[in-house]
Amino acid sequence: MQGLHLTADLHGCRCAPRWLLDADALGEACLDAVRAAGLQAVGRLFHSFPATAHGPGGVTATVLLAESHLCIHTWPEQAAVTLDVYVCNFGADHSSQARTLLDALLALFEPATVQRHALHRGWVADDGDGARISAP
Amino acid sequence: MQGLHLTADLHGCRCAPRWLLDADALGEACLDAVRAAGLQAVGRLFHSFPATAHGPGGVTATVLLAESHLCIHTWPEQAAVTLDVYVCNFGADHSSQARTLLDALLALFEPATVQRHALHRGWVADDGDGARISAP
Repeated sequence: MQGLHLTADLHGCRCAPRWLLDADALGEACLDAVRAAGLQAVGRLFHSFPATAHGPGGVTATVLLAESHLCIHTWPEQAAVTLDVYVCNFGADHSSQARTLLDALLALFEPATVQRHALHRGWVADDGDGARISAP
Repeated sequence: MQGLHLTADLHGCRCAPRWLLDADALGEACLDAVRAAGLQAVGRLFHSFPATAHGPGGVTATVLLAESHLCIHTWPEQAAVTLDVYVCNFGADHSSQARTLLDALLALFEPATVQRHALHRGWVADDGDGARISAP
């Protein structure tokens, strides 16, 4: 179950408002991006949050992949988004497809700034990425 | 959308086989653990993978939270599991609940070894955790 987990935290998103507000529209865009990246969707779950005193509610779009998962959360009142693309490398190395998928989603949201992180997961030995291995 | 993303990659899981094989059983256990930790589920998606030449198929259990998400993937043929608990701190700091949820799930799977990682997400300034901030 070794794999690659990419995260990106986006601020100052200048995209069309529907990508931050419309769970179905965002979800369909996610499915298109998953296909275009050469990954395989096996399930989907899109959720809209109600408006609050801070502004309109955000959305969550999750796509389960044969290779692991994609999760997006939007905060329209902050023009902010968090992205997770996690691919296991069971059977083949899917790292390239994961990067392609993340890049496509970054392009969708048009952020002013992005905070990225890459975590190599599931290695028994310390992978040098700050992970800590221990008995539970 | 500042928050805490905890991951744990488990090897040598000595739990009852159903936690690695039965998506509905694992999903219900996840929902119970979410409630017990004081977090709020707003959606769920459980998926079973078919058996392969390597052994029985694993499962994915995803719970969308008001506070963000929980994702679990199991690899029964390797007695391995990956856990993600991501909570945003919109409105309140949910870090303590996230740690409680992760600990409950670790106890469920009874792993021999655990590789943990904690990522502080959504900060505009570098948080010292290896994140890289840039224009997209």
